[in-house]
Amino acid sequence: MTKTFMFEKPLGMRDTLPELYRTKRKVIRQIEAELKSWGYQMIETPTLEYYETTGRTSAIDDQKLFKLLDQQGHTLVLRPDMTAPIARVAASKLAHDSTPLRLSYQANVFRSQQREGGRPAEFSQAGVELIGDSTISADGEVIALLVSTLQKAGLDTFTLAIGHVKFVDSFFLEVLGTEERVQGLKRFLFEKNYVGYREHIQSLSLSSIDKERLNQFLNLIGDESIIDRAKELTIDPVVLDAIQQLETLFDILCDYGVKEYIKLDLTLVSHMTYYTGILFEAYANQVGFPIGNGGRYDKLVRQFGVNEAATGFGIYIDRLLEALQFDEETDETILIIYSAEHRKVAIGKAIELRNQGDSVIIQDISGIKDLDKFVKPFAEVYYFFGERGRDS
Amino acid sequence: MTKTFMFEKPLGMRDTLPELYRTKRKVIRQIEAELKSWGYQMIETPTLEYYETTGRTSAIDDQKLFKLLDQQGHTLVLRPDMTAPIARVAASKLAHDSTPLRLSYQANVFRSQQREGGRPAEFSQAGVELIGDSTISADGEVIALLVSTLQKAGLDTFTLAIGHVKFVDSFFLEVLGTEERVQGLKRFLFEKNYVGYREHIQSLSLSSIDKERLNQFLNLIGDESIIDRAKELTIDPVVLDAIQQLETLFDILCDYGVKEYIKLDLTLVSHMTYYTGILFEAYANQVGFPIGNGGRYDKLVRQFGVNEAATGFGIYIDRLLEALQFDEETDETILIIYSAEHRKVAIGKAIELRNQGDSVIIQDISGIKDLDKFVKPFAEVYYFFGERGRDS
Repeated sequence: MTKTFMFEKPLGMRDTLPELYRTKRKVIRQIEAELKSWGYQMIETPTLEYYETTGRTSAIDDQKLFKLLDQQGHTLVLRPDMTAPIARVAASKLAHDSTPLRLSYQANVFRSQQREGGRPAEFSQAGVELIGDSTISADGEVIALLVSTLQKAGLDTFTLAIGHVKFVDSFFLEVLGTEERVQGLKRFLFEKNYVGYREHIQSLSLSSIDKERLNQFLNLIGDESIIDRAKELTIDPVVLDAIQQLETLFDILCDYGVKEYIKLDLTLVSHMTYYTGILFEAYANQVGFPIGNGGRYDKLVRQFGVNEAATGFGIYIDRLLEALQFDEETDETILIIYSAEHRKVAIGKAIELRNQGDSVIIQDISGIKDLDKFVKPFAEVYYFFGERGRDS
Repeated sequence: MTKTFMFEKPLGMRDTLPELYRTKRKVIRQIEAELKSWGYQMIETPTLEYYETTGRTSAIDDQKLFKLLDQQGHTLVLRPDMTAPIARVAASKLAHDSTPLRLSYQANVFRSQQREGGRPAEFSQAGVELIGDSTISADGEVIALLVSTLQKAGLDTFTLAIGHVKFVDSFFLEVLGTEERVQGLKRFLFEKNYVGYREHIQSLSLSSIDKERLNQFLNLIGDESIIDRAKELTIDPVVLDAIQQLETLFDILCDYGVKEYIKLDLTLVSHMTYYTGILFEAYANQVGFPIGNGGRYDKLVRQFGVNEAATGFGIYIDRLLEALQFDEETDETILIIYSAEHRKVAIGKAIELRNQGDSVIIQDISGIKDLDKFVKPFAEVYYFFGERGRDS
């Protein structure tokens, strides 16, 4: 074992050192307080789950799962997300509790990475799941809560893009006619490759009206004015129902007073295959990936034996920290240095200061190798040594 | 996949439901505040570490490690304790920072279990490591901090047993002469099998004086008066030095005002093979296992390329929770139920109450299946529905 190797961490794994830790904890406390304020109850689930139970149910690529075998030969996974574990707990709680159920979490999740310098393989998520409520009010609540939580965490500028799984899927099916052609076109939306999208449409054997409808689709991003434009593109009742849901949702979000953060984006799609309705992503300008996302997943809880609708969101804490601006905090810890003869007085002083609410390090001088270097970071230092205790 | 299996968790894995979660978080916040008040800096390390780096270094049985292979073929472990990871970080930090270094953590650790109903396989620990200070003052500080932290967490009655690795090892070697015989006798201390210990002594070919010394050894548990009795049993300078250290330590702990929690126990041994000096265990009457333990480990950090003395402790959060008595908290969340026509007013009321510091659930009546059951747990409910909004 080489010395160098001793310092290494597995691919995508990171230490969080004191300064970042303080900031992170502060943000997490603010988030947890807001979730509590909206009546969500925090729970914790195990880091390891059976692959059969939640690994398969999660929408994360199988190759991104950290898998291991337990001593009984079952395959375990390090949880890749919290939605499936919360659904498991909710299904079990619903033997006693009444719906709707409001649960929340703050936990690390794990996704194996392929290369150095890529995304983190372990990262912190906070979020909520609102289970057993199929109303648009529930969608509105979790979106308003996401806005409110990001605000309380200190984020001033961000945008929430809101779309609808059924709008994209059913509109594409209405125009294109086959599921295969739908998937072929959706591929460009995943890649946000709009040039490719338009080229692909030209290559399809469609009427020029239908081609125009698909091109118009790309413009369905903006404020509430896009709702009427969307209605003009379709006569399919499922698509119209999705648009109606978004219209109601927009009204609800106005009632919550969060309209300024909302952008309707009817082109929004997600790799999370369990979404069944309204879905959303939060972006802050500075950060390249969504800092939070969520949506309705009405069929996931069913897999745990209870047929309940559900919606929720998750916030990526690391990305949120990246988006936040922080003032550098000064370390206000007080240092007391003493020699053995003055130990009792020094300890008394430390107790007194701590009782006043100060953070105090008390240090035997004989345990310090380099006094100047050790003392340097402290703004306030008391010395108790020499013939008589000296008090600077 | 059977429905039953869907609800199962791997052996030793547990969910933490809302009530216990609230209590646990509260206790952890109190602990973190106290560690901060003593100038310890919190850090976080990855859940997964290289087996070569910290799996081997930890004192946990290899068969208790959760192991997996990464995509590069390296063996990873779910960290079985925090001492080795913190030593890794400390060694790396010491390229810049000056000793002594005061670090703290609160993290889940993992130890694979063999059977149902056994100990948890994932559990929360909080603790400190004081690195680069070989003085007894450092031992005194971490012990006083452990006492203070348990007090602040709300634990009134507990005992800290303090011993010394070198006292047992060197005293046994002085009397028994060979390492093999030392290990043979220590076995009974690990098992706390004192009858077996006395029988084993009788079976050894030793002078009756030496047999009496080894029997007297078992009585070295109590207050400071045992120190003089211990000195009478030995002439070995290493053993006498260990006793001297405990004597100084006891004085320091008197200066910290924590004497009443201390029991000297010179028969104390530990399975943690990295301890090199003073070691200790905290017990609360009601709980069968130590709720915290720690000690000096002067050779562990060296394995990370930096030759520094160290001491620290860990608290087992679950066992602490078991030892604490809690008043059942009443859920004071306020419930607002509304119908669509009154949505805006209801949302306004929720915002107003939350701004006052209340926790408020706001619920669309059409999302509730069983109104009576849903309303039952709430002490305060506002209704906004019917012809005019009704305000109870």
